Amino acid sequence: MNAPTQLAHVTPEIRQRPAPPALIDALKSRFGAQFSEAMAVREQHGRDESAFTTVPPPAGVVFAESTQDVQDAVALCAQHKVPVIPYGVGSSLEGHLLAVQGGISIDLMRMNQVLAVNAEDLTVTVQPGVTRKQLNDEIKSTGLFFPIDPGADATLGGMSATRASGTNAVRYGTMRENVLALEVVTAQGEAIRTGTRARKSSAGYDLTRLFVGSEGTLGVITEITLRLYPLPEAVSAAICSFPSIADAVNTVIQTIQLGVPIARVELIDANSVRAVNQHSKLSLREEPMLLMEFHGSPASVKEQAETVQEIARDHQGADFEWADTPEERTRLWTARHNAYFAAVQSRPGCRCITTDTCVPISRLADALLDSVAEADASGIPYFLVGHVGDGNFHMGYLIDPDSDDERTRAERLNHQVVARALALGGTCTGEHGVGLHKMGFLVDEAGAGAVAMMRTIKQALDPDNIMNPGKVFAV
Amino acid sequence: MNAPTQLAHVTPEIRQRPAPPALIDALKSRFGAQFSEAMAVREQHGRDESAFTTVPPPAGVVFAESTQDVQDAVALCAQHKVPVIPYGVGSSLEGHLLAVQGGISIDLMRMNQVLAVNAEDLTVTVQPGVTRKQLNDEIKSTGLFFPIDPGADATLGGMSATRASGTNAVRYGTMRENVLALEVVTAQGEAIRTGTRARKSSAGYDLTRLFVGSEGTLGVITEITLRLYPLPEAVSAAICSFPSIADAVNTVIQTIQLGVPIARVELIDANSVRAVNQHSKLSLREEPMLLMEFHGSPASVKEQAETVQEIARDHQGADFEWADTPEERTRLWTARHNAYFAAVQSRPGCRCITTDTCVPISRLADALLDSVAEADASGIPYFLVGHVGDGNFHMGYLIDPDSDDERTRAERLNHQVVARALALGGTCTGEHGVGLHKMGFLVDEAGAGAVAMMRTIKQALDPDNIMNPGKVFAV
Repeated sequence: MNAPTQLAHVTPEIRQRPAPPALIDALKSRFGAQFSEAMAVREQHGRDESAFTTVPPPAGVVFAESTQDVQDAVALCAQHKVPVIPYGVGSSLEGHLLAVQGGISIDLMRMNQVLAVNAEDLTVTVQPGVTRKQLNDEIKSTGLFFPIDPGADATLGGMSATRASGTNAVRYGTMRENVLALEVVTAQGEAIRTGTRARKSSAGYDLTRLFVGSEGTLGVITEITLRLYPLPEAVSAAICSFPSIADAVNTVIQTIQLGVPIARVELIDANSVRAVNQHSKLSLREEPMLLMEFHGSPASVKEQAETVQEIARDHQGADFEWADTPEERTRLWTARHNAYFAAVQSRPGCRCITTDTCVPISRLADALLDSVAEADASGIPYFLVGHVGDGNFHMGYLIDPDSDDERTRAERLNHQVVARALALGGTCTGEHGVGLHKMGFLVDEAGAGAVAMMRTIKQALDPDNIMNPGKVFAV
Repeated sequence: MNAPTQLAHVTPEIRQRPAPPALIDALKSRFGAQFSEAMAVREQHGRDESAFTTVPPPAGVVFAESTQDVQDAVALCAQHKVPVIPYGVGSSLEGHLLAVQGGISIDLMRMNQVLAVNAEDLTVTVQPGVTRKQLNDEIKSTGLFFPIDPGADATLGGMSATRASGTNAVRYGTMRENVLALEVVTAQGEAIRTGTRARKSSAGYDLTRLFVGSEGTLGVITEITLRLYPLPEAVSAAICSFPSIADAVNTVIQTIQLGVPIARVELIDANSVRAVNQHSKLSLREEPMLLMEFHGSPASVKEQAETVQEIARDHQGADFEWADTPEERTRLWTARHNAYFAAVQSRPGCRCITTDTCVPISRLADALLDSVAEADASGIPYFLVGHVGDGNFHMGYLIDPDSDDERTRAERLNHQVVARALALGGTCTGEHGVGLHKMGFLVDEAGAGAVAMMRTIKQALDPDNIMNPGKVFAV
């Protein structure tokens, strides 16, 4: 594994490829009111949750209502070799949605139908604009649920495109494990299907998993078939405070090594707890804390919780505080999910630069504690949250967007976090994707040969480089 | 989903691409005694467990001992545009190993080292010639195990290349879910790495899962990092006989729909039981039978088993017969794994044509019972085994290899099984791969557009078509 050789891409390379009037006219004629050039609409589709602020918006936005709409929009853009950027709720943290080479944004939020619930097969097929909360609302009566939960109420299209995960992945896997099949519109404007509703298959190349995590650079996802799970008979959630991050992390490491099938195990640091307390009017102990959830039969949940409580006690953990009712649990996980926004609001006007490394579980303490020490020494306000059961954690550096100095120092911290993760056998991104930000890190992690192979695939499938260009690979 | 339009490839298309003397000389000079042209060696490397019998053997065999050996062998073949076929134990059922376009077989069985056991991370890194049984022997002292079990003691390289699964997949997933990272030698003779030891990653295209299941057509796998699991605290295995296949299958469907985390649930039909009884000198009831295994804490195992026994009783299942000691369990699973060979031996001199469809679990009874009725009506001896928890089952038609009539009738049965599976939303191959046999079915299943995309990727990564050519795609 090479050590990182370059900083993250702090300033995206902007290479405008203008949308010619003939394309704009054709889009107007084909899409009528479903196409907009209004500056407010373009600006809304020209940003996301990343810290990049200086990229011009796309030339226009198509509000797709069907796969055919997507095919026609892509085909028109392909004729003119103009970029296409799929857009959902805009919750990317890595600049995926920014029009660094200009082009047309395809808004998929009107494609928000749950197309088929096959409860007896534990599968569901949705359009890409369905969000994870919407899906779980719509299938509530089936006794099933979709577990992947990245925090934001992201679309399932966006979650597929970035190979998202979040809380629950420690038990149920990520989008990689839970997408069974896709419909995709290619760079040529053709619709293809990958996969079937069978749980497993050896039928040819795994195009499904090639598109999962391809960040819009190979095609536009227009339909997704997902695995569902029976709602567990019993669910218990608990929080546990620790005197130090090390104690909390070591509790998690041992829990995973013992094979306890814990459904969620999230770490938030004292900074995050403080922000959450302020934001959500709570009075949690402002110490490092694990938030946990156990799924199973009543007996199994009890057994799991007792095992973890015992491990926690060995590491100076407090007694578990339980959240047993659905309402209490919702409050708990809402507080956890609000940690990001609570922390960002704790420094008015700031932008957040977020790290996303993931390491083998035994190296988690090494990776995390050194990162915390460096952040403490830097003086930059930060918070830490982590899907620690997977070895994945996020440092959020809260910077003044107008301060080049803070940005550079935060990026240097990020660089150190990534370098350490790679040296420990980990990855620069556990779940957010490469986007604009980690293109250098990707080369450091995967090596020039593997990245060259990715580029070869990209060039073969999208020879005019119109599908979300400038992401994953520089240029 | 289209209905299948063509029969399976019964007779492989043979297009010899001769290995020029200059290549043979270069291989001799580079590899010395590690290269063989002996006819017995070539013939051994020119066949597998498939029913194809008429393909000439490869021109020579390289016994690779290192990644560098593989790189050099591939680079020499690439210079001469001569095919390369990776070879493990030869347990393919689909003709993957046959030299339909001539070329050089690369035997990987000397690359049989377990390179790194990272017990504290639940990962292991192995060379491709390590077999699954060898791996589990070597890690016995760690308290961990590798669950994927396709029956044959296949190599982990071959299992990765075919996206294998087998018993245990219902609980632990397939090679798709359990390969974390690979080292691969490309068609250009370069070694690249895909993935890391982190449990999850969003770092660029998922090359790991592109190579898993690529059947040697994109590169040669030279190193594999796998997930391991803690040995369950308690294991119980049981068999249960049923008056009909329908009763057994409906028991499985309900078990899966309820979310019981059963570790293994295998169906064998009365024909298989009869063959196993003869082969293994057992006296099992010659009725359809489920073989089950439960993993977990003692309490959880008891709970799971009670739930399934209750479901089985509702479907006329007999009382469970338990296999509680490790020795009894080994005997039980050995009998299950011997079902294939026992059945083949029940008709001396026969070859076996095996189906491998997998359907959504609610359609399993439809898919399976009609297939059994057709086989009964055909008069061709057959047996049925199934990883039914995944919706995957195998009909094995035992044909006289010299009888074109039997072969044609068996292929017609196979065709009907596949057509039905595709119509029910399933796949033509759950775990064996496409190989020479299912190239037509792949087009029926995935559609021309998706197969064209697979070919585009193949051509981009292997422009001279030297990596195991003639498999997955015709020509």
